[in-house]
Amino acid sequence: MARALIFDLDGTLIDTVYAHVFAWQRALAEAGLPIEGWRIHRRIGMSGGLFTRAVARELGRPLSDTEVEEIQRRHGELFRELVPERRPLPGAVDLLAHLGEAEVPFGIATSGRRPEIDASLEVLGVGADVVVVERGDVLRAKPEPDLFLACQERMGVHIRDVTVVGDAVWDLLAARRAGMLSVGLLTGGYGEDELARAGAFRVYRDPAELNASLDELGIVP
Amino acid sequence: MARALIFDLDGTLIDTVYAHVFAWQRALAEAGLPIEGWRIHRRIGMSGGLFTRAVARELGRPLSDTEVEEIQRRHGELFRELVPERRPLPGAVDLLAHLGEAEVPFGIATSGRRPEIDASLEVLGVGADVVVVERGDVLRAKPEPDLFLACQERMGVHIRDVTVVGDAVWDLLAARRAGMLSVGLLTGGYGEDELARAGAFRVYRDPAELNASLDELGIVP
Repeated sequence: MARALIFDLDGTLIDTVYAHVFAWQRALAEAGLPIEGWRIHRRIGMSGGLFTRAVARELGRPLSDTEVEEIQRRHGELFRELVPERRPLPGAVDLLAHLGEAEVPFGIATSGRRPEIDASLEVLGVGADVVVVERGDVLRAKPEPDLFLACQERMGVHIRDVTVVGDAVWDLLAARRAGMLSVGLLTGGYGEDELARAGAFRVYRDPAELNASLDELGIVP
Repeated sequence: MARALIFDLDGTLIDTVYAHVFAWQRALAEAGLPIEGWRIHRRIGMSGGLFTRAVARELGRPLSDTEVEEIQRRHGELFRELVPERRPLPGAVDLLAHLGEAEVPFGIATSGRRPEIDASLEVLGVGADVVVVERGDVLRAKPEPDLFLACQERMGVHIRDVTVVGDAVWDLLAARRAGMLSVGLLTGGYGEDELARAGAFRVYRDPAELNASLDELGIVP
């Protein structure tokens, strides 16, 4: 049984974190929920619904389901306006191609939703043969372990053989709860210590550095 | 001689870091210099010229002075479009008012420029009696110590009596080189360990928490 990798998508393979922060900040301010950029940043990667409710609770203003949906819709709209094209992070396309050629199984597990994630998958060259688990496939998004567990099951690999790759503490927390190893990438704008303390076995700058360091993870393609 | 405080502005008193990241990313991409959000984020707080040249060097494409100026101009334009109004960080207005009433001397030292910073100073209630040193007042911006030293001289306080308050490692590095104590705020999106390792004596969440913790710094208003 080969070792397997499960990747987060936004901020791990595609450079979208800062655009998400900015779009959330605008959508929330428009809804009368002004909140600081850094607090949004540290929550990116959670499910959008969980995130919106957490912000509202913090500001002491409970939201109805309709309001939560409207804020999420507006965030999506602003995000598409701000970032018409997706940009893979350095080395992301090469890393996935490399794993494919070496027959190291990998999948993608994201708190994002189809069809919003489709452009990202396309620009990464992720074909129909790759297992992709998205928000709509599970009941609970990160930091619950459901996305990673669903991905691992569909890939047909053992939990103990999986290493999760993510840029946010929510990925690392969800991986731990799923009983999986994890590594962190700095591409989401967290500091190295934050990722290590959240359970990352190693921290790399970006997918390019991870690609050059696979043997440090016991993966020898 | 009372203890004195010198504040950074963007990211420390005003919530502008994520809008700056996004505006820089767009301005640089338009100039054919695509670069990841997290790399921009970790350089915010440097002078714009230094920053633009650093990015260009990293991408292996040297820039002429005219190009550097044009990218800076475009960044300013996008920034004003994206953030028409400045939002003080939680507790910032109260903190400055509190220091003023208690007659604790304070000043502001920023890598930003007039007239771009004027709206921020106004929303913070910073009057003409407060020493404000901006990019145009010194030869070299952060991480050089010039901004903090010029501010301290104009305030007429001793270096050993100054505590610098900043959100970026560049503030903390410049403070160290100026021989000043420093504290960090999480409002710029750095992790606590990054700020502590760069020399911050304490790290607070935001200006509100700093305001409630002045006695931890030996400042008893």
